[in-house]
Amino acid sequence: MLQSDKFKKIKPHLITRSLKPENQETPIHFLENRQTPSALTYRRNHFNYPPFTNQSYNLTITGSVKTPITFHYNQIISLPSRIVTSVLECSGNKRSYFEPKVYGEQWKDGAISQGTWTGVPLSYLFSKTGIKTGASEVVFQGEDFGVKKGKHVHFERSLPLEKALAGDVVVVWAHNQKPISPKHGFPFRLIVPGWYGMASVKWLKTIRVVDHPFSGPFQTDDYVYYPHKNNNEEAVPVTVSHVNSIIQQPLDRQILQPGQHEIKGLAWTGEGVVISVEVSVDDGGTWKPATLHGQPRQFQWIKWSYSIVFEKNREYSIKVRAYDSNGHLQPDTAFWNRKGYGYNAVSQIKIKVE
Amino acid sequence: MLQSDKFKKIKPHLITRSLKPENQETPIHFLENRQTPSALTYRRNHFNYPPFTNQSYNLTITGSVKTPITFHYNQIISLPSRIVTSVLECSGNKRSYFEPKVYGEQWKDGAISQGTWTGVPLSYLFSKTGIKTGASEVVFQGEDFGVKKGKHVHFERSLPLEKALAGDVVVVWAHNQKPISPKHGFPFRLIVPGWYGMASVKWLKTIRVVDHPFSGPFQTDDYVYYPHKNNNEEAVPVTVSHVNSIIQQPLDRQILQPGQHEIKGLAWTGEGVVISVEVSVDDGGTWKPATLHGQPRQFQWIKWSYSIVFEKNREYSIKVRAYDSNGHLQPDTAFWNRKGYGYNAVSQIKIKVE
Repeated sequence: MLQSDKFKKIKPHLITRSLKPENQETPIHFLENRQTPSALTYRRNHFNYPPFTNQSYNLTITGSVKTPITFHYNQIISLPSRIVTSVLECSGNKRSYFEPKVYGEQWKDGAISQGTWTGVPLSYLFSKTGIKTGASEVVFQGEDFGVKKGKHVHFERSLPLEKALAGDVVVVWAHNQKPISPKHGFPFRLIVPGWYGMASVKWLKTIRVVDHPFSGPFQTDDYVYYPHKNNNEEAVPVTVSHVNSIIQQPLDRQILQPGQHEIKGLAWTGEGVVISVEVSVDDGGTWKPATLHGQPRQFQWIKWSYSIVFEKNREYSIKVRAYDSNGHLQPDTAFWNRKGYGYNAVSQIKIKVE
Repeated sequence: MLQSDKFKKIKPHLITRSLKPENQETPIHFLENRQTPSALTYRRNHFNYPPFTNQSYNLTITGSVKTPITFHYNQIISLPSRIVTSVLECSGNKRSYFEPKVYGEQWKDGAISQGTWTGVPLSYLFSKTGIKTGASEVVFQGEDFGVKKGKHVHFERSLPLEKALAGDVVVVWAHNQKPISPKHGFPFRLIVPGWYGMASVKWLKTIRVVDHPFSGPFQTDDYVYYPHKNNNEEAVPVTVSHVNSIIQQPLDRQILQPGQHEIKGLAWTGEGVVISVEVSVDDGGTWKPATLHGQPRQFQWIKWSYSIVFEKNREYSIKVRAYDSNGHLQPDTAFWNRKGYGYNAVSQIKIKVE
C-alpha cells in the first residue's frame, strides 16, 4: 500500500549548526558510503553564498607569474585531469569536545566528509603561466565575501609555493562524478588533500602568486592554533589534518542487548596512512587491534571494526585510537587551543547492556 | 540564474539521533512557526514502523465498557470534532544535559514540537460505549510492536480513568489540517495535551478499559522517574510536562558582533500557563523580565524575547527561566533520575563578543 511505502523512507539528514551563514554537519554515524553524497557533505561557510554571474566561469592566475592567464570553464574542463578521493575535514571538527569549552561553531563528529574530486593539478596551470623568481606563496581567493571585524573581505587563504606545486593540489570542477554543487564551490574549488578544509577554497576566482607572507583574517587570525586563552604567544598555523577516528556504532550512551556486537567506525590522517586502530572496552586499561577493511590509501579514511560479546547488566567505556605511518597516534587529551582546532583525542563512548 | 536559485535553499533538517528505530529531533533553534511542520516534527519510536493494513482503519473500544464498539475511520472523522493546538514533548527531551550523564537517546533541545490536532474527544467515544462500574484505567495500544527485554510487546500506555475522561484527551485523525502522516500515527493517534509525549500513543488500535492497575514495559519500567542509580526506590511515574524553556538564539558558544541583539526563545508548561520568563546575562546574578509575545495559552508554548546591547571583548553567561501559573519555576539544577526524564533546569548558553 502507498502508506507502507512512506514508512520506508528512513534517512539521515544534515545536522544544522547554523543557517546564517549555513553550517551543517554530515550525519557521519549513519553513513556507510565511501563517497559521502554531495547532499550530505558537510557545509561550512563563513559568509552568505556568493552571487553567480557569467564572470564566475573565469579563473584568473595573476601576480608573480610570467604570463597571467584567465582560464574559462570550458578550457579548464578540457585540460588533462586528475581524480583524487580525499577526506575533507573542517579544522573545527569535534570542537564541542574541548575542555575547557571554546567559542565558535559547536561541531560534533560530522564536520568531515569523503569525496571524489576531478580537476587540473595546480602545477599544470602554473606550467602555462610560469612563476617569477622570488615568489614564495600562492593566495587563493573565493567569490564569497562579507564583513569580518568591520572590514569587507573575501575568503582568502595562501599556501607555501612548495605545497602549491605539489602534484596533489588540484583545481577541481567535479565532485563525485558531477559538476560541483553550488553549495560546495561551483564552478571551481581548490582541493588540498591532507590539509584541513579551510585550505580547499570554494568558488575559486583568483590565484595570486606573491613574494611575501600573506596575511588575512582567515590566514593569520582564524585558522591559527593559539595555545593560550589570553594571549597570542606560541601561535602556529593550522595545516595538516591530525590522525583521528570516529566510533560510528554503537552510539554514545546507547542501551544495548547482551550478545555479539560490532563496534565500527572510521580512521584517517593527513600525512601518510593509518596503519592500525586499537580498541579498548575497559576505559583504556587494555587495547586490542581492530580489523581494518581494505588497504589504507593516502588521504582516505579507512573503515575499521571490532567484534565483541557484551555481557548483561554491565556498562562499558569504549575507547578507540588510530596510529599513522608517520608515528602519530591519537593522544589521550587533545591539544587545547583557544579557537578550538584540530581536536583528535582518543575517541570514546559509554554504553550500557541491559 | 538557475544556480543562484539553488543557493537560496538553506533550510534546517531533522537532527538524526538513531535510525533503527527512527529517532530524530526537531531543529528547534531554527523554527519560527507556531505549528511545527509535520516533516520537521520530532520522531520518537520504540520499534520499527508498523505495517499498515485495511484493519488499521478500525479502532476498537473494549474491556469494562457496556457496549464494545469498533469504529471505522469513516465514522470517526464524521463525529463532532475538536481542534487542539498543543506542545508535544518527549520526556527524554534535553536528556543529554543531565549530570551525571544517563543512558538512552541523547536528545538535546529538539524532542519537542507544537502541532494542531483534530479529532474526537475520548469522552465522546465513551458516551457511546458506556463504562462499567469499577473501571479505573484506560489502556491504549498502538500497532507498533517489537521485542523488549526478550518479550514480544506492543507499545501500550494507560491513563487513569479520570484523566481519560477529561475533555482535552482526544483521538485525533488530522495533524496541521491534514491526515496524520504515517510516521506520526496514521490513521489514529491519542493526544494527551500537557503530558509528556509517551502518553500520546501513535497508530492507536485498541482502547481497553480495565479495573486494575495496568503494568507494562512502557508504563512501569520505562517512563518512570527513578531517583537512584542502583535501586528502584521512590519511583514515580512520568506524567505532566515540567515548566521549561529554550534559548533559540543566540546559539551556545556563538561569537557575536558588539551592539544590539535579541535573545529569544520559547517557554511552556504542562499544567496552567507560563506567566513570566526571566533573563540573566550575568550568570544568574540579576534577572530581568523578557517580553512575552501574544497571550499565554494552555498547552502551547509562548515566544519570548529580550533586547540587549552586547559590549565588545566580553563573554556573557546567559540564563533563562520560566514561571507558570501553578507556581512552578525552572530549577537551577534538574531533578536527576536514572533514565533521564523531565529535564528542565534553567536554560543557559555562553556567548563571546569580539
